[in-house]
Amino acid sequence: MDTSYGPVVPTSRAVSALRPLPRDAVTLRPDSLFGGWQARNAAATLPHCVAQLDSYGNLTNLRRVTGDSGAEFRGFWFADSDVYKTLEAALWLGDKSGFVADIAGLLEKAQDADGYLDSYYQVDNRDKQWSELHFSHEMYCAGHLFQAAVAAARSDNPAGPQVVGIARRFADLLVRRFGDSAQVDGHPEVETALVELYRVTGHRPYLDLAARFVENRGHGILGEGRFGPRYFQDHEPVRSSPEVTGHVVRQVYLLAGAVDVAVETGDAELLAAAERLWDSALASRTYLTGGQGSRHRDEAFGDPYELPPDRAYAESCAAIGSFQWAWRLLLATGKPAYADEMERLIYNGIAGSTGLDGVTFFYSNPLQLRTGHDGSHEDAPSQRLPWYTCACCPPNLARLMASLDNYTATGDPGGLQLHLYTAGTFRVGEHAVDVHTRYPWDETITVTITEAGPGPWTLSLRIPAWCEDARLTVNGEPVEAGTGYARLTRTWLAGDRVELTLVMPARLMSAHPRVDAVRGSAAAVRGPIVYCLEHADAPAGVPFEDLELDATVPPQVSRDPDALAPVLLRLGLRARPADTPHLYRPLPAPARATAPVAVTAIPYYLWANREPGPMRVFIPLSER
Amino acid sequence: MDTSYGPVVPTSRAVSALRPLPRDAVTLRPDSLFGGWQARNAAATLPHCVAQLDSYGNLTNLRRVTGDSGAEFRGFWFADSDVYKTLEAALWLGDKSGFVADIAGLLEKAQDADGYLDSYYQVDNRDKQWSELHFSHEMYCAGHLFQAAVAAARSDNPAGPQVVGIARRFADLLVRRFGDSAQVDGHPEVETALVELYRVTGHRPYLDLAARFVENRGHGILGEGRFGPRYFQDHEPVRSSPEVTGHVVRQVYLLAGAVDVAVETGDAELLAAAERLWDSALASRTYLTGGQGSRHRDEAFGDPYELPPDRAYAESCAAIGSFQWAWRLLLATGKPAYADEMERLIYNGIAGSTGLDGVTFFYSNPLQLRTGHDGSHEDAPSQRLPWYTCACCPPNLARLMASLDNYTATGDPGGLQLHLYTAGTFRVGEHAVDVHTRYPWDETITVTITEAGPGPWTLSLRIPAWCEDARLTVNGEPVEAGTGYARLTRTWLAGDRVELTLVMPARLMSAHPRVDAVRGSAAAVRGPIVYCLEHADAPAGVPFEDLELDATVPPQVSRDPDALAPVLLRLGLRARPADTPHLYRPLPAPARATAPVAVTAIPYYLWANREPGPMRVFIPLSER
Repeated sequence: MDTSYGPVVPTSRAVSALRPLPRDAVTLRPDSLFGGWQARNAAATLPHCVAQLDSYGNLTNLRRVTGDSGAEFRGFWFADSDVYKTLEAALWLGDKSGFVADIAGLLEKAQDADGYLDSYYQVDNRDKQWSELHFSHEMYCAGHLFQAAVAAARSDNPAGPQVVGIARRFADLLVRRFGDSAQVDGHPEVETALVELYRVTGHRPYLDLAARFVENRGHGILGEGRFGPRYFQDHEPVRSSPEVTGHVVRQVYLLAGAVDVAVETGDAELLAAAERLWDSALASRTYLTGGQGSRHRDEAFGDPYELPPDRAYAESCAAIGSFQWAWRLLLATGKPAYADEMERLIYNGIAGSTGLDGVTFFYSNPLQLRTGHDGSHEDAPSQRLPWYTCACCPPNLARLMASLDNYTATGDPGGLQLHLYTAGTFRVGEHAVDVHTRYPWDETITVTITEAGPGPWTLSLRIPAWCEDARLTVNGEPVEAGTGYARLTRTWLAGDRVELTLVMPARLMSAHPRVDAVRGSAAAVRGPIVYCLEHADAPAGVPFEDLELDATVPPQVSRDPDALAPVLLRLGLRARPADTPHLYRPLPAPARATAPVAVTAIPYYLWANREPGPMRVFIPLSER
Repeated sequence: MDTSYGPVVPTSRAVSALRPLPRDAVTLRPDSLFGGWQARNAAATLPHCVAQLDSYGNLTNLRRVTGDSGAEFRGFWFADSDVYKTLEAALWLGDKSGFVADIAGLLEKAQDADGYLDSYYQVDNRDKQWSELHFSHEMYCAGHLFQAAVAAARSDNPAGPQVVGIARRFADLLVRRFGDSAQVDGHPEVETALVELYRVTGHRPYLDLAARFVENRGHGILGEGRFGPRYFQDHEPVRSSPEVTGHVVRQVYLLAGAVDVAVETGDAELLAAAERLWDSALASRTYLTGGQGSRHRDEAFGDPYELPPDRAYAESCAAIGSFQWAWRLLLATGKPAYADEMERLIYNGIAGSTGLDGVTFFYSNPLQLRTGHDGSHEDAPSQRLPWYTCACCPPNLARLMASLDNYTATGDPGGLQLHLYTAGTFRVGEHAVDVHTRYPWDETITVTITEAGPGPWTLSLRIPAWCEDARLTVNGEPVEAGTGYARLTRTWLAGDRVELTLVMPARLMSAHPRVDAVRGSAAAVRGPIVYCLEHADAPAGVPFEDLELDATVPPQVSRDPDALAPVLLRLGLRARPADTPHLYRPLPAPARATAPVAVTAIPYYLWANREPGPMRVFIPLSER
């Protein structure tokens, strides 16, 4: 195993249409959007997470195990997972602070002789170890440790081998304990982690255990729990499930693991199940931002077409899990729809989770905040918060952003595939390209061949499904772009220049009419960016809730380098005419709103970076 | 205190515009809708509740206290309250089964010498008594005991005095323990119960304690809890709160208690606060059915205009509490809006909670059930269930229905006020009337004076605000009906006949445009009855979710004595034209649906009495 890879590297025996690139094969330009996010993540988010682990007791919990603290256990019982996610992020970021070594030392000291490691169950609750798997998250936490170990194995951190050793001792315990068992953890995560650990170690029992956990699930072994078996996808095996259901993060983590198992074992049926379930999610249970999860109560997908914008849960971790699931499906199949979804997620559902400051975060990501919203509780705050009682999201964002470059392109002996457009350099074998673009603000992506290498090879460029007009030239000569991927096969010369223009007019989008919650409303989008209307830009004197969108006024692109984003939109809004205050009334005759005025819409991912106040993605349409 | 009264009888010193009638002053005709519901409640619901108390362990919990059972505690920690509510229902229904005596014996044996009674805290958790008031429901349970005692005091049950004695011993303990305290119970209920206990005993310390609890609340003394101080209305005192918020049942029980305290203490400011909060609830946080509560997660009111039909929580207990709150405001002020709301609640939000069988119940009462709904969990079942893990609603319905006759009319020395129209006889002092009507199916209410009594008096008839055409005659002579209440003052003669016709065309209603969740949709109503479209009546061959309402086709009244209800509506529905399956798409041009067909709509309260399947109150409108 080359130590220079990022997360998710199928073995050479895996069924995998595409292959990830080594980390040093991709260099993002710092002034690109992705590069900037990565820099902010390294400079602000990671140090913030490290500090929070101290102040919220996560490290003290482990020090209780080593006898170095007599404090009470703090936080949720799965608080160790925050440590592991932060550790993983630090490893991807090439930690030089000593954090990795400190944590590795602490974990090694805390680990039981048999490999067990879980600070919640090692002091007060020893008698309950492995006895409440529907609830305990013991293997969920183990999975995040394993993922940190994968990052360690692919790093040059001096403490890396120590982290791998800790993870392997725990994984070996799992193999001994559950290798012949019919049990599973209530929260999937260990499945994908075990496959990844197999990938860096070549130790087949880890893969076999992951496969077993995927198969064990769906037979009602976890009991009713608080929300019934569907909550943890224990109502039906992955293989036969017709649709996604239950707790979103559990579902998408499980399916990421199922894809990992499928590609490593050549299990076409299991891969097909993961694709079928992905289709079901995209058909009726996904927000315009890529977010998933319509219910706060059980953090669940909800019924088909149940997509309320105000009570969207759309947990940040769900978006991350969905991104990881889509990436695995992209590698396995090479189908462009998965890359399209990754794009939608990264620019909207995921990007919106973190504030401009890099140290505040949303846990749920609503598409609407009402005037008069009660944001007094962290369940639905009006602004991003520095941390959460259940702090799963911030360090999850840190580890994803730390490895974001890894998800932009793939390679294979036949060439290079560009999936997420960003300025930077990309290499596969002896072929290298330089990408210049201000995408997604600009429409044009220029790819210059910097190292041609011998013989013909194929440069593949994704044509997003949202783009109805993709224009492609090679050295100035027009070429048919096609759909899905434009595949340019030729004997390239250094200096060859490919220009792809993805025409991205500002557009108004509506939801399928079965999405009752946004009926008679439209959202403005441009390219992959979903826009929203936020109070700070709304005209004075009109209640925010009474603004309507005039669909006959085409949205205009507004460019200003000093604005919140380089490209804003201007929408034609009207004030709804004065109306009866009655909550219910006989069906009124259509009333004409005031003349439209142009109002700025900002990228959704940038909302809530000014004073708190109402926001909406879908805007009611005035009567036509 | 006359033992023949029902619940809620302000003392003669109370500020009260209207006065309830003694129980024997009202006799509902058995073939009336209300009479039928009461009969079903007595024959089916009450025996069912009594049986469930046995099978779900509520009685065993109490027998653990008396040493007669060694079983584990079962159910929620406030399971005693189900016993008390069932006891109250049995007392209003004139129990002859011995149930009341049995329970009285059990409670007396279980009660501590100092009056304490709570089976959750008397065996395993003695050390926690009174120590976790934000959570414990100890006074919530006590309150339901007191309400049962009020029913006992107003009954001729031989065990009645025993129940009153138990309640008083507990109430006296509360006075000793909390009479000078700044504490409150996390769940209001004891406030209204203490005032009622004061009303039957004349013991002023109970009223004083209730007043203290109302004042204590709102100062952040309950802590953050799981959902923050607003959850239990501890963020701001009732007196200054601008709007309803938090857990709905807690809020409406608290405000019912606040009205009780206000009228008994002559506290005009407190009464005004309760009226202001009622206005805030009705302005933006109430469903068309009268249901309240938009969120499953914390059973809360939600933000203004946040009224999703599919995820409506609209807990049955909230509707009952809202009904009781409105009744208290009606008595205090005599304003017709409160009676209008009681009418809306009883025919929709409350009536829909119980199945035709009388032994199945909804806890949450959604206004929409989607095709593909996952009804596998009791949080949002597709059909009514016989019981719930948290079984607060069924016995609450039983006690309300057992005393429903009590809420139909009031009297005062000046005459009789009819609020909820139903066939039956009504008496106040020496004046008596006979009401003939098939309301709400028929428009006409005929009131015949059967005992005129001496001198002039006033017969007041409510004119519902929904009625735009009320016609009134006295002995065939037209009289101006007016609005609010038609007040007919004269020297009546036996045989005088008043005929009130409340013209009730079938109508399509829409919600205020800020109610995003039902934008572009309409609901059919007739008189006080909200109708819904249910799958069993939908045309074959068209997906239920693709049905649209043609607002240009007036809904038609359909009468059939053998149908589910005597009056059904026929709506003009169209099938939505075939559409792209994409969840999001550019704003389409309006498409013409198929020609309308007439489809039956049934009263909302009768839904889910056939095969399970989708239902909706608000139906999308086809493009106009």
